[in-house]
This record gives sequence, structure tokens and C-alpha cells, in this order.
Amino acid sequence: MTETNDHVFYSWSAQDEINPVEIVSSEGSTITDADGNTFLDFTSQLVFTNLGHQNPRLIQAIKDQADKLAVIAPAYKNATRTELAGRIADAAPGGLNYVFFTNSGAEANEHAVRMARFHTGRKKVLSAYRSYHGATATAMTLTGEPRRWANDNLDAHVGRFFGPYSYRSPFHSDSPEQETERALEHLEQSIILEGADTIAAVILETVVGTNGVLVPPPGYLKGLRELCDTYGIVWIADEVMVGFGRTGKMFAVENFDATPDLLTFAKGVNSGYVPLGGVIMTTDVRNTFAHRAYPGGLTYSGHPLACGAGVETFKIFEEEKILDRVNELADRVIQPALVELAAKHDIIGEVRGLGMFWALELVKNRETREPLVPFAAKGEDNAPMAAIGAACKKAGLLVIVGGNRIQIAPPLTVSEEELRRGLQIIDEALTEAGQHYEG
Amino acid sequence: MTETNDHVFYSWSAQDEINPVEIVSSEGSTITDADGNTFLDFTSQLVFTNLGHQNPRLIQAIKDQADKLAVIAPAYKNATRTELAGRIADAAPGGLNYVFFTNSGAEANEHAVRMARFHTGRKKVLSAYRSYHGATATAMTLTGEPRRWANDNLDAHVGRFFGPYSYRSPFHSDSPEQETERALEHLEQSIILEGADTIAAVILETVVGTNGVLVPPPGYLKGLRELCDTYGIVWIADEVMVGFGRTGKMFAVENFDATPDLLTFAKGVNSGYVPLGGVIMTTDVRNTFAHRAYPGGLTYSGHPLACGAGVETFKIFEEEKILDRVNELADRVIQPALVELAAKHDIIGEVRGLGMFWALELVKNRETREPLVPFAAKGEDNAPMAAIGAACKKAGLLVIVGGNRIQIAPPLTVSEEELRRGLQIIDEALTEAGQHYEG
Repeated sequence: MTETNDHVFYSWSAQDEINPVEIVSSEGSTITDADGNTFLDFTSQLVFTNLGHQNPRLIQAIKDQADKLAVIAPAYKNATRTELAGRIADAAPGGLNYVFFTNSGAEANEHAVRMARFHTGRKKVLSAYRSYHGATATAMTLTGEPRRWANDNLDAHVGRFFGPYSYRSPFHSDSPEQETERALEHLEQSIILEGADTIAAVILETVVGTNGVLVPPPGYLKGLRELCDTYGIVWIADEVMVGFGRTGKMFAVENFDATPDLLTFAKGVNSGYVPLGGVIMTTDVRNTFAHRAYPGGLTYSGHPLACGAGVETFKIFEEEKILDRVNELADRVIQPALVELAAKHDIIGEVRGLGMFWALELVKNRETREPLVPFAAKGEDNAPMAAIGAACKKAGLLVIVGGNRIQIAPPLTVSEEELRRGLQIIDEALTEAGQHYEG
Repeated sequence: MTETNDHVFYSWSAQDEINPVEIVSSEGSTITDADGNTFLDFTSQLVFTNLGHQNPRLIQAIKDQADKLAVIAPAYKNATRTELAGRIADAAPGGLNYVFFTNSGAEANEHAVRMARFHTGRKKVLSAYRSYHGATATAMTLTGEPRRWANDNLDAHVGRFFGPYSYRSPFHSDSPEQETERALEHLEQSIILEGADTIAAVILETVVGTNGVLVPPPGYLKGLRELCDTYGIVWIADEVMVGFGRTGKMFAVENFDATPDLLTFAKGVNSGYVPLGGVIMTTDVRNTFAHRAYPGGLTYSGHPLACGAGVETFKIFEEEKILDRVNELADRVIQPALVELAAKHDIIGEVRGLGMFWALELVKNRETREPLVPFAAKGEDNAPMAAIGAACKKAGLLVIVGGNRIQIAPPLTVSEEELRRGLQIIDEALTEAGQHYEG
């Protein structure tokens, strides 16, 4: 139970049914609680501490910027803000040239949708099931998973489609190639039947995050780009979770050789040390607002303290060759280890992911692919998954437990030893969980 | 024109028609541009640097918290977050006991509305004309001023009413007392005609900010409280701009002896040095979510770095007796000086405000009260007001120019000398503007 001296109201929770662990310090890939227990953090919290906990260079950058200029209103020009926007535009795929800064991913998605609507003069936005886009009104309506259920569809101009998901194909496909073909056919049919001329944007997480580390099959995003071009629709790539190196590229779309019109980010831009998000846009979208005021804004757009940590993030990526190490460790350590786990544990139905972002989808039966727990399971129904999370935690490892999946997203700075130790703990937890396998 | 090396997309602007001033440093009540010009800042930026620019104690608190623990996910307990929530609950009027932290005022209002809807089981929210509540979908729909016009009413469950405004009474009243009576009658009629049983909340800026420093007349907020009690409606007090000492009390409602169910804040909680906002709620609202999950959240709820600056804000308020100095300077310096200005300049129709938050409403004719510029004037139509702002700026003073009003909101730490100097500049700018008086 929450202690009575805690006046904090906690996100997504029944306030009397939680007992939050108190965290007193963190370092690198670990966090430490008030009882002195240290946990290896394969969650990067909510997938945001991409450069690890208390990264000394980021901490120093915050202190330096605090001394220089903590904050200035968005109507002014400021060198730190300008530098970060320039670095982001340089790093982003060609054509994505301007940055509108927000505080968070939810706000980034809200503003991206507003931009798309004014750019196209259309209202409707299509979003995918199995997605999360944030908790403000439009962002929550876009969300395609249970956290939306209790909330209204407050933004009336939202339609929904099925994205590709090869392991559980909504299109009865037999291969990733067929999944791409059929998912694109489904999306085009959805566009046509919703009225292409009424659709401002399609929004999609480049790699679906919380809802399963769903990596799009080959050609899907290129096909999405072509559909958007054909029908004059803006493609919004939500990279709040997967931007800034998580997938082994600075932006996840670079893995798929296709460029959106708008790309939203947050989290990894500065490892969450200061709240920051934003929208990267093409010159074409920007120019819609060249002589017409953009009807949106926020008090802390381009907050210098937050941008200071963002600028340092780019320096660390370059100087410490973060992307190289992510790809090297993914290829040499993570993927082989997870494939090995799958060979050992029948309960693993599929291993998928890239970079430092992976999911193990757990099943009762490999043949039928029946999930280890039902969709959106709670309480007793979810006990087998909760037990795996608890076993990992007991052994000193934090993992993301979502639906019937164990997901891992270690800091991009994680050491090989830490990776191997964490994977070993998952191995042991899965052995215990093997009792639930019914195949 | 924006320089081509600036990849920043600016809030609320036509991107090719702005030429943002570059700010390189700030201190106390001043900011300095890249050409070495220093401005006395009577805007507190967007009314957020309540403890001044680069307050050394706030800067040190940020650096200390950065060294200790910059960030941790909201699901964990954290001492800094818990301490700030406790201090806010202690300072807030009785009954407001729990704090849900956000990044911004817009998000705070979004979550307050969500809480009110689940608490009452009703959907509709009434908001006032001449209000600003933020730029995410629900917050923008609640907004009752021109910045909403280009945007859709995305949240369908919003109705609108007229708040009190004695100087330009929508109710043809002759006195503040009559304004209160008639404004409450109008609000009750609005509630009844919208269907009291369908209304979750009434949201109102305690003192209307950007839209005119409209101080509610005596008894209005007590009457609002009674109407909300009668009809089972939640009162949301938006104190994003006026919380944390701006009006001479920690929270503006304390001036009016009435307590809302939900109070939203941002800006002044830490002078905007790190993005932070939140909702303070009664135990009653909190208990709606005791055994039922609150269906909302955000990655940086209760961000330690932001909360660290919030804790220090409370210490500074106490140790430096900030509220006492605000009230003393308001009574001894600001109000007398503004009254004197009004005696001298016929163009001033009304002086109103409290604490460090004041407006001069400018008119062409005191008798007819015709505004100096029309409502929502742009370009040539707005030239007389733009000229006053420019004259102040040229003389080294930043003021808020909104509609036909000059508004001032200096840092609460402003010195008497700075106050007198700024007021002197306004005096001179008004002399120049006197040419537009047609009375």
C-alpha cells in the first residue's frame, strides 16, 4: 500500500493497490532501491535511458547548460536550441529538415497530427491496432491498445487499421513477404473505404514498441510511403520509443529505406534526463506555415536545459560510436543468445527485434501458437507472466512484461558482461516458467 | 526572416515572417540578446520565471539533483518527488491533498478533465470565453480565445460560458457585486440548459491570465463552489499562470476563500527551469482511483530533476519571504504607480490586477470604453498596440501586449528600482500612444 506520507498520485494505477519500490540511486545499467538492492535495468525505465543511468557526460552537460541559461521562452532564438535542431536535421533522413520541440512524445504526436491536418486540409488520421501514442486527448484516441479502452475516443477524426504482424498474421499470410503484400493491400483498402480525400495522415510506430517489438516486414514501410504519395496522405512515423539508436540506427526508419513526412521523438533524444520531445518535418510541411501562422505552441518548446542534454547526446553517439556498439553487440551477443534460448525453451514462440530492442513471445503451444496468457490478461489470468517478471526481479534483473511477451531494451551503453548476466537470468526464469507449456 | 541555419520550427508563427531575437544570457529580472542589449523582463517570459532568471539557488538545486538522480520512471517511489508532492499538498488549500505530476500546463488540464470525467461519470466540461488552457486536443478545445479558432473543437464534450468581466460586463451590470450575481445566474442557467447531470466539470483560470488579468469580483468563486456542490460538478481551477505566488498568495484561490476540487499548475512551480506541471486533487477525487486504475499517465510524471527545482522553490519562498515582498511591493509601489498612470493618461480605461500581475486596458474613449484596437486585431489594425510594445522594448523593457492591454508580470524577485524604472518606461510609451486617444 502507498504510505500515507506519500502525496504522489501514480500513473495508470489503482492508488491503494500499489506499493512502489523506492529508488535512491542509479548508475550505468543499474538502479538501486532504498533497501540497497541493485537491479540490472533491461527496461531502460520506460525505454528512455538510452545512454544509461547518470551518464556523467549528460549530467555535466545539464550542469553546464544550467549555469549558462536554464530556460528562455520559445519565441526567442537560442544557440543551444538551434544547435540541437541542426544536429537532428543533419542526422534525420534526407528531407526531414525542421524541428518543432515539445516536452513529450504525447505532445509531439498531438502537434504532428495538427501539422498534417493543416498541411493536407483534411481531418482523418488512421492509426494501427497494437500501438501506443500517448495519453493526451488525440494521442490517446490514436492509441490502439487497452490503455485506451477506459478512455473515450475524444478525437472523432480517427480511424484504425491492422499493421503487419507476421507471427500472428491478421491476413493469413505464410511469409513476411506475403505479410507485407497483404498488409499493404489491407491498408489501401482501408484508405479507399475511409475516403482517401478525407485522410490527413497515417501514424505508425516504426517498430511497434510496448505492444510487441513488431518489426515491419521487408518492403512494408516503402509500400506505406508509396500509398501515402499516391493518395496525398502524410506519413507520421512515431519514433518516441525507437528513435535515437534503439534499433541500431539513429532513426528506426533508416533500417527500412523509407522516409516519413513527419517523425516524432522524445525519450532517447536526451535519455529522459530533462523532458523533451519533438516533431521533425519536411521542408514541404514546414512551408505550409511559411506565411500562415502555425496554430499551436507550448511554453517550453525548445527548452534550453533539455536541448543542452540533447546536444551532448549527439556528441556521445559520435565520439563513443554508440551505433557501432549496438549493432556489434546485437549481432554477436543478443541475437545468438536469444536464438539459443528459443532452442532450449519450447515456451518461446518467437524471438524478434533489432539493435537493443527485443521480444520473446511466449506460448502454451508452439504448434497452435496459443499465447501463454490471453490478450489483456489481468490478475490470476496473467499470473504466469507476472511470475516470470518477479523471478527476474528476484534475481536482480528488470525486464518489460507486456502481454505474453518478455521484452528487453537495455541501455545502449550496456556492457557485454551485463548483457550476458541478464540473459542468463532470463534463461533461468524461463526454465521455471516451462511448467506452463502445454505443447 | 529566420536564418537558413536555424532548423527550429517556432510556436504560433508564420515561419518566414518572424525574426526571433537571439538571447544569450539572463540574470534576475533581465535578459540579454546577442547584440549585447539587456532588457528588463516584465513578462517573466511566458509568466513563468517567478523567482527570476538564473536564480542561483534554483540552478544549484538542479545541479545537485542532477548529481543525485536526474530521472527515474513514474512507477517508482522517489524521495524528491514525494517531498515536492508533500510540500504542494501542505501549501494548497485544505482538502487538496494529492499531486499528479505532468510536464506542462496543457497536460495538467488534460489529466484534470480525465479525472473529473471518471470521478463524476459524466462527460461535459464547461469553460469560459477569454481563456487559455493549452494546445493539446482537449486543452485547445477548452480554450476560449483566438488561438483556438484555427483549430477544431476536437473534444466534442465541451460547452462554453461567459465569466465575469466588470469593465465590459456581458451582463450589463453596474458594479462588481452585481457582476458576481449576474455572472453566477448566467453560469447556473448555462448548467441547467446544458443538463446539470451531463456536466463533469467547470474549468476556469482563477485569475484569467493572457486574456486580460481578469480578477473575479467578490464572491464569484464562492458562488461557483456552491453551484458545483449543488449540481455535483467538479471545479477545476487552472492556476498554470497564477499559481506559486503570482497573485501574492501561493495559490490564487486563496485570495477568494474558495477551494476547487482540482487545481492545475505548471510554470511557477519551478520557474520553468525544468518542464513541470501537475494536478492537485482532493482526497475524494483521489479515492475514485483507490481501487480502480487511473487510465492515464506519462513517461516523465514526477521527473526528479524537475521536482528538485520545485522543492527548492518552496524553500526560497519561505526563507526569502517571497509572498510578503510581493504583497508589500504591490501595495506600496505597483498599484499606486498604476493608479497615477491612469490619472495621467486618458488612454487607460482600467487598471486591474493583484500581486505581480497587472493589466492596463487601453481605450480610444473613456466614456464609450471603445478599445484602442478591435478584438483579435492583426497587422495595421493592431498598429497602436504594437507601437507601445515596440516603444517599451526600444527603451529596454519587455511587456506583454495582448489585445488592447499592456500586461505586466515581473519576476516576484524584481527590485523596487527595477519596478520603478519599468513603470517609468511604460509612462513614456503611453505618452507617445496618447495621440490615438479620441475621447
